[in-house]
Amino acid sequence: MKLNLKIIIHFFGLLLLFNGAFMLLSSLVSSIYNDEVTLEIFKAGVTVLIIGGIFMIVSLKHKKEMNKREGYIVVTFGWIIMALSGTLPYMFTGVIPNFTNAFFETISGYTTTGATILTDIESLPKGILFWRSLTHWIGGMGIIVLAIAILPLLGIGGMELFAAEAPGPSADKLHPRITDTAKRLWLIYFGYTAAETVLLQVAGMNFFDAINHSMCTLSTGGFSTKNASLAHYNSQPIIQYIIIVFMFLAGTNFVLSYYAFKGRIKKVLQDEEFKLYFRFIAVFTIIAAVIIYFYADVSASSIDHPMVWGEAESSFRHALFQVIAIVTTTGFVTADFTLWTSFLVVFFFGLMFLGGSAGSTAGGVKVVRHLLMIKNGFLEFKRTLHPNAVVPVRYNKSAISGVIVFNILAFFILYMLSFIIGALGFSLLGLDFESAIGVAASSLGNVGPALGEFGPVNNFYDMPTIGKWWCSFLMLVGRLELFTVLILMSPFFWRNR
Amino acid sequence: MKLNLKIIIHFFGLLLLFNGAFMLLSSLVSSIYNDEVTLEIFKAGVTVLIIGGIFMIVSLKHKKEMNKREGYIVVTFGWIIMALSGTLPYMFTGVIPNFTNAFFETISGYTTTGATILTDIESLPKGILFWRSLTHWIGGMGIIVLAIAILPLLGIGGMELFAAEAPGPSADKLHPRITDTAKRLWLIYFGYTAAETVLLQVAGMNFFDAINHSMCTLSTGGFSTKNASLAHYNSQPIIQYIIIVFMFLAGTNFVLSYYAFKGRIKKVLQDEEFKLYFRFIAVFTIIAAVIIYFYADVSASSIDHPMVWGEAESSFRHALFQVIAIVTTTGFVTADFTLWTSFLVVFFFGLMFLGGSAGSTAGGVKVVRHLLMIKNGFLEFKRTLHPNAVVPVRYNKSAISGVIVFNILAFFILYMLSFIIGALGFSLLGLDFESAIGVAASSLGNVGPALGEFGPVNNFYDMPTIGKWWCSFLMLVGRLELFTVLILMSPFFWRNR
Repeated sequence: MKLNLKIIIHFFGLLLLFNGAFMLLSSLVSSIYNDEVTLEIFKAGVTVLIIGGIFMIVSLKHKKEMNKREGYIVVTFGWIIMALSGTLPYMFTGVIPNFTNAFFETISGYTTTGATILTDIESLPKGILFWRSLTHWIGGMGIIVLAIAILPLLGIGGMELFAAEAPGPSADKLHPRITDTAKRLWLIYFGYTAAETVLLQVAGMNFFDAINHSMCTLSTGGFSTKNASLAHYNSQPIIQYIIIVFMFLAGTNFVLSYYAFKGRIKKVLQDEEFKLYFRFIAVFTIIAAVIIYFYADVSASSIDHPMVWGEAESSFRHALFQVIAIVTTTGFVTADFTLWTSFLVVFFFGLMFLGGSAGSTAGGVKVVRHLLMIKNGFLEFKRTLHPNAVVPVRYNKSAISGVIVFNILAFFILYMLSFIIGALGFSLLGLDFESAIGVAASSLGNVGPALGEFGPVNNFYDMPTIGKWWCSFLMLVGRLELFTVLILMSPFFWRNR
Repeated sequence: MKLNLKIIIHFFGLLLLFNGAFMLLSSLVSSIYNDEVTLEIFKAGVTVLIIGGIFMIVSLKHKKEMNKREGYIVVTFGWIIMALSGTLPYMFTGVIPNFTNAFFETISGYTTTGATILTDIESLPKGILFWRSLTHWIGGMGIIVLAIAILPLLGIGGMELFAAEAPGPSADKLHPRITDTAKRLWLIYFGYTAAETVLLQVAGMNFFDAINHSMCTLSTGGFSTKNASLAHYNSQPIIQYIIIVFMFLAGTNFVLSYYAFKGRIKKVLQDEEFKLYFRFIAVFTIIAAVIIYFYADVSASSIDHPMVWGEAESSFRHALFQVIAIVTTTGFVTADFTLWTSFLVVFFFGLMFLGGSAGSTAGGVKVVRHLLMIKNGFLEFKRTLHPNAVVPVRYNKSAISGVIVFNILAFFILYMLSFIIGALGFSLLGLDFESAIGVAASSLGNVGPALGEFGPVNNFYDMPTIGKWWCSFLMLVGRLELFTVLILMSPFFWRNR
């Protein structure tokens, strides 16, 4: 089977035009704040637009249809091309002169991970900070269309389940159009971002920080315009609560937000994944809050205790914030949670494997997969006792086909395998046990902050060069639900049949 | 459904009689070495025999048939009763006066884990050392009959696959007789133990140490009669090589040994699990040897370099020994492998999740499960690309039913869940990240040595009391293939229907 190269190049061209246009927007922001890098960002944008234009011209008269194999290539290399072109604003302005560092920062942006190699964020030009937040926000848009319109067609990891109006994986040919659903969800994504910006401003944040944090919240990214991340706002609890609410929304299936706006609240409240997502957060917050309140060495972790509502409120807020930030894989921090207690280190490490809801911008394994694995686990006990009984896994009242459950179990095993190979890679570069394990879990889950040397108050600047590429690879693999990337490495994918 | 209590008590009685008889044997050893605890061990044995006798009398005229539910109870509580009664020699002699410590040491024995709370092993009476090694050896016998004759009937984790002559999981009633196969395998187990004892003596070990180390090798246990474990014999490489060979055999399906003795070598060499087990060990040994030779800080880890064959041989031997000791979950040590390099810490941590072959005395996930998970993972890529193709997983040339693959995937997920809950428990008791994660992985996999504070050169004496019970629980859960123990905790198990 020959690959239809023209349609692949056509999509790469589209992505580059899209990316270039966003660079011009950053250049505009730069000029408004008069930060002296306007021209460099503008040049980066024009360069990307020209390359994108060439791609479009070369791929004129492409076929309108794509097959699955082309789909995998477009998605994986599409993300890589975005990250490659996205380095130009950093490189042209000299903010990140080193290519490895620039690539790390952009892929961390587009995969909505939020790990950074920058050491003094607050000193950077506003145009660059805006571009950095934009890479998250664009990545988030990509994830929504991926989850709703593309992955279900590619048959990845049970994603068929979550797509509201996906035509199902039966057809081998797929029509790569952005569905109406995706457009509606983008509107919600945009609306949430605007709403958070306004609310943060009302709560006392300036407009620039508000819009940047909003873009990084809705994409569950985690870049901040402050060196201390959200710990910068420890004396303004209301700001942290606003971010908590929007992180929660960003980690919820956007289709449910759509139903909520349509007034179909019952459908939201009956959604099994949403219920478990909510319960997970509630239970984990209570556990963390109790531990923080009674046992944590809060002074060492530099939790600031505003006396507004006292210590109990502060413990609850930091617990809730950190639990939601890790579960939704946003990765904002309000304190160095690795210094709280030994228990909470293992606890947050475990949460890195949870992930938000499917159909959200969150990374990780995802709540629905855990839900189906737990259900299947219980049923396995029943099947063991009564081997002749047929007991299918049910989700939102319908029986799930064995094929999908199989796919989810295989996904989890592949995830754990990627994790241990990831950790081995980091340890080979000399990272200690805790750091190696933490960075692997965090990168693969697109969380951001890790453990040990790369904990919440550190950055990735001192990571060895090969380690930065290894991180980048893991972030991409995790973000694209493993199969999309790893299938390109299987020999039979490239074999002609 | 009412439980048939009489048959359960009958089996407990049998186990106690069996255990008591072995205590009398230890008392005999004690008298031969004239170690002054002969009478105490004898009293322990008589006590256990009397209790066992009462159980047998109470359960006269029991039904001859057991159902599955009774099977789970007999297996789980059988192991617990062995461990409870096995504490008596330690307690009566005052060698381990504390009950928690005594229980930890016995359950670590019967589960063939090999973690110890003893601080000065060499100072103990010979009778007690012999009893300690016997708990491993009895545990190993139990595992063989479990793997070959019981678990396949209970339908646990794909164990149907490995049983040579098991009647299959179709019948609800099971006849709890020790099959002829189990008896033949016991003979091989006994023969290997005798052969190793002779070889170790020829290599220069005294008879007592030889028989003890042999019992602890064949059961993949890992208790040693030396404080430094096998590092004690660093200047006698030939002893370490002998132990390497028998650890390898102990981690191989005993059914394959049986075939080998019958001259059916081809059947052994074509066995897919055996091939992968061999390849895993070969590849991991090469990796570890290269790292040790070029990078490890050998002086810090107290590797002793006999100049007999030079450093290369020493690096290779330590690598091979440690890889086999961890993969087969024996847990003997020749050096503090956690001090070699950061990479090897993560590496050996990863190996703790591998496990030996099914049908061997090794613990852990087991090679065959990894094999089928890997195969299924690859097939999942194919299924993703060609959703209409039917591609079953094949093992030793026959297609494996989806039910068994499902069961194996569920087993692995439950294993990972038990691991993270295990680690959370230890961290709650104040263990640091590395120790908590390491002890959980080691206990669940029945390895023995863990990481951090409970690494290869440490012991479990300083573990908090609750932690010792938590370890004991994880050892039991891991040893009995999770389902056997955990099914007893599911509400529907106890529900009348």
